[in-house]
Amino acid sequence: MNEQINYTLDKINQLPSRFRGQMMNSLSGFKNTVLIGSQNSQGDTNLAIFSQVFHIGANPPALGILFRPHTVARHTLENILEHRYFTVNYIPMNYASEAHHTAAKWDGSEFEHCGFGVDYQNEFPAPYVKESTVRLGLSYEEHSKITFNDTILLVGKVLEVSFPSCFQKEDGYVDLSKGNFAMGTGMDAYHSVSRGIRFSYPEPHEKPKIIRYV
Amino acid sequence: MNEQINYTLDKINQLPSRFRGQMMNSLSGFKNTVLIGSQNSQGDTNLAIFSQVFHIGANPPALGILFRPHTVARHTLENILEHRYFTVNYIPMNYASEAHHTAAKWDGSEFEHCGFGVDYQNEFPAPYVKESTVRLGLSYEEHSKITFNDTILLVGKVLEVSFPSCFQKEDGYVDLSKGNFAMGTGMDAYHSVSRGIRFSYPEPHEKPKIIRYV
Repeated sequence: MNEQINYTLDKINQLPSRFRGQMMNSLSGFKNTVLIGSQNSQGDTNLAIFSQVFHIGANPPALGILFRPHTVARHTLENILEHRYFTVNYIPMNYASEAHHTAAKWDGSEFEHCGFGVDYQNEFPAPYVKESTVRLGLSYEEHSKITFNDTILLVGKVLEVSFPSCFQKEDGYVDLSKGNFAMGTGMDAYHSVSRGIRFSYPEPHEKPKIIRYV
Repeated sequence: MNEQINYTLDKINQLPSRFRGQMMNSLSGFKNTVLIGSQNSQGDTNLAIFSQVFHIGANPPALGILFRPHTVARHTLENILEHRYFTVNYIPMNYASEAHHTAAKWDGSEFEHCGFGVDYQNEFPAPYVKESTVRLGLSYEEHSKITFNDTILLVGKVLEVSFPSCFQKEDGYVDLSKGNFAMGTGMDAYHSVSRGIRFSYPEPHEKPKIIRYV
């Protein structure tokens, strides 16, 4: 039986903290899970997993990243504010465990500890992940605090992108599902993603058509 | 051959606008694609697809939503600012076409035009999508403008959630992959998501273990 459960805010607030964390983190939906490579001004590298990374614009191209208050992930924020450049790297599903491991409290570089190779592609001034085939190099643009709970939203401008040419369609679309990258839910779940169905531009009174490639 | 393509910002800026839009939207990664139900103070309902919806916090539970400047989606923003309540509904994969269709420029309610049922569950003051089994009811908390490109970030507090009880694990995790919900990439692609692999809490010098349920 598919019995439906309802939780009101009162009931959510009474849940044990970890149970609530797991529940609300998973109900917030599918997460764009990536590895962010950064370094400080001494060149010490850092690698951390992030799951709140999203599209801000295509012109100029930019991504937004949320930093939770008081978490280990702040090393990445400090590095970006200091050095200004960072990389976003998609996670091959067979490296999900190593990527998850970057969230532990490490001394020294997670690249080394978790088994990822450093790649300074095209002399971009931040470390890329060698094992990742779809990567973006970004520079710091701005950050602001969300008053509600002190979460920080940082905007990065995309300075370069790199991906396997066979992923791109003739209209520009890059099919990430071809890379078998990990996508997240909750705080610790990693999923692979099926081939997508693409639909035509939505017009009123005309059912969207499925886009097919030759 | 998996030949790698590189685009620098100069090259990205020279691309035709639609090609650049498709490319940068898909490179920004996996998108949490949901239907947002809202209404104005006259009770006229609106339903719109959004793909920039993300976790802001579990205590108090909150989601963030990005609104692009000058798009049709602004009806939802106007309704939320006016009426303060709205719903977030996950999209069953077999309704992806109808959900995509809500993005057309409609006069009147997309619920009717696109074939979704209105459900005022527990007298929550905003319309839920009858066809969606995982739903959140939220209230407006704050919004702010991202200076970089006038995108608006709105924060909503979760007031209630509802989902099939069989999706929840004993530690609180709600397994969205059981619902065969649609997740997005780019501007028009919808994907289903595999069962996830969950890993134990990341500790240094201890490889994450796979969490299994009895």
